Amino acid sequence: MEELAVVRKGITPLDMEAMEQARARQDQLTKPQGSLGYLEDLVVQMAGITREVNPELGRRVSLLFAADHGVTEEGISAYPQEVTLQMVKNFIHGGAGINVLAEQAGAEILLVDIGMAEDLDLEGLQREKVKYGTENMVKGPAMTREEALSSLKVGIKVAEQLKEEKASIVGLGEMGIGNTTASSAVLAAFSKRSLTDLVGRGTGIDQERLLHKIQVVEKALAKNRPDPADPVDVLAKVGGLEIGGMAGVYLGAARWRIPVIIDGFISGVAALLAFKLHPLVREYMIPSHASQEPGHAAAMDLLGVKPVLDLHMRLGEGTGAALMMHMVAAACQIQKKMATFTEAQVSGKG
Amino acid sequence: MEELAVVRKGITPLDMEAMEQARARQDQLTKPQGSLGYLEDLVVQMAGITREVNPELGRRVSLLFAADHGVTEEGISAYPQEVTLQMVKNFIHGGAGINVLAEQAGAEILLVDIGMAEDLDLEGLQREKVKYGTENMVKGPAMTREEALSSLKVGIKVAEQLKEEKASIVGLGEMGIGNTTASSAVLAAFSKRSLTDLVGRGTGIDQERLLHKIQVVEKALAKNRPDPADPVDVLAKVGGLEIGGMAGVYLGAARWRIPVIIDGFISGVAALLAFKLHPLVREYMIPSHASQEPGHAAAMDLLGVKPVLDLHMRLGEGTGAALMMHMVAAACQIQKKMATFTEAQVSGKG
Repeated sequence: MEELAVVRKGITPLDMEAMEQARARQDQLTKPQGSLGYLEDLVVQMAGITREVNPELGRRVSLLFAADHGVTEEGISAYPQEVTLQMVKNFIHGGAGINVLAEQAGAEILLVDIGMAEDLDLEGLQREKVKYGTENMVKGPAMTREEALSSLKVGIKVAEQLKEEKASIVGLGEMGIGNTTASSAVLAAFSKRSLTDLVGRGTGIDQERLLHKIQVVEKALAKNRPDPADPVDVLAKVGGLEIGGMAGVYLGAARWRIPVIIDGFISGVAALLAFKLHPLVREYMIPSHASQEPGHAAAMDLLGVKPVLDLHMRLGEGTGAALMMHMVAAACQIQKKMATFTEAQVSGKG
Repeated sequence: MEELAVVRKGITPLDMEAMEQARARQDQLTKPQGSLGYLEDLVVQMAGITREVNPELGRRVSLLFAADHGVTEEGISAYPQEVTLQMVKNFIHGGAGINVLAEQAGAEILLVDIGMAEDLDLEGLQREKVKYGTENMVKGPAMTREEALSSLKVGIKVAEQLKEEKASIVGLGEMGIGNTTASSAVLAAFSKRSLTDLVGRGTGIDQERLLHKIQVVEKALAKNRPDPADPVDVLAKVGGLEIGGMAGVYLGAARWRIPVIIDGFISGVAALLAFKLHPLVREYMIPSHASQEPGHAAAMDLLGVKPVLDLHMRLGEGTGAALMMHMVAAACQIQKKMATFTEAQVSGKG
């Protein structure tokens, strides 16, 4: 496996020539130029990533990282910590939202335990545990710098594995009770906005518990003082193992030229973290839905991308990313199958 | 075939009991309540339409109406009138954007000539011609009241045909050079907004021609004085045959409880026209994408629905509606396949 520094060095810009050729083909297809809007931009981006003028969506993967969070002992979630494990079992048995939406999108699910509080010995779960859940960040750092680096390395390793398995696109998701709290804290370290804009209701807490959650994030930041100039420090002090894993995937996927679809809040904050580690990773990311979790918009603004699905979702698990696969597939099919003005004998613009 | 008045009388509200049962099931599935946002609302709406708690998407249809517009002689489009016919041939040969996106969505295409300026005798085109294109609305009414009513009846007839063919969902689209001009005029008859907010660049005209297009719409409205209290009068004086056909489909589909997906600007204005003919039709409509054509937002506001796909598209042909079918299918699959908290042994909210 390549080390973080090597991976970062290996990330290069998109292929401009493939992008120009893809755009030129779009302009010959039987539609007013630019009339397919973001679908056209998607094809051009996919061409730049894959170096193919007609990019194809072959193997599709919904990649989920599961981890626990010591901060749950502060009572910041509507659900108890054991729900992480219960939902992972639900993923394995095929009963969760992501199972349904991944199947519909033609994607297989790859499920990674990067830090659940308990072990689970079931087929369908890849064990890459860095730690049995993070520490309570109100009392001290969520993890050591080494553990944070290990979580990034797990993500890089999984991205390399996906390259070897010839994944053509990855939708990133997660499961971890407490992870909106950690994500808000990571985001707050990078954002100038007020915590009231960055901390949300997660799985659905009431107003009273929301105020408590804001205080918990405030305490964790005051206790640990994460350094925004050092993204690994932020990840270690107030982050989460799945956040590190996902950030590692964004890095590795950019290194091996695999497009990655950002899902909601946690996946979006991980994308921001990866972007802070290497700005070029953004070129390999595809935004999907605008999460109802308020911090998501702030994360997307800092990252400089704009979600296109406005479905008021806040489930996580990579569900929004799975829905976005249909749009990416649509864009690739358009590029491959539409007739040109010449082929169809349609008159051009007068 | 039922007459317009009979169809209007036959439109009834959604089935509240099926909707309540569908919502109750959503609340038992292994996700925080409401966390799938608009997908949950979609299932509930589909249940209300179909009277099934677990609505299924069987036969899917992309329904396209083609027609010509006398107003093209005013030079309001970037493309010559013959492109309507050429693009219809392209639809039949499978080379257009809607061919690709309908195929991807598992939908068959039903193509109806409701008013092309020329005849085309090709398999794959249903001939329901009311008139060989509208008259130039700058010089007088686009069509007679009888012709407007006939275009609505064609739509109702096609909706009835779709009911007989057991279509489970319809995405509505069109092809007709000049039809954004007619749609802007229809919209302006119902809207208090300035024409600069309601007239757009259509297939991509420059600033100079846009100003000319605004003047053309202004002249057509001044010449014909359509009565907003009489939607058929508006359709006749400044509308189009495909606009009438689509409005008829919305009415007929509501009558026979078939959900219809609104596409972009023309399809959106037709939806507004149908809504003016019977307010309950809105309950049977599903919005899709936010068109780049500026009047689309105004039409959706007047209709009181909100598009959820923000893809900056402006192609028409039902392309946005076809993309939306994936979302409706996702919602139905979620309802049918996700496990409940009890089934999956996942703890509920604390």
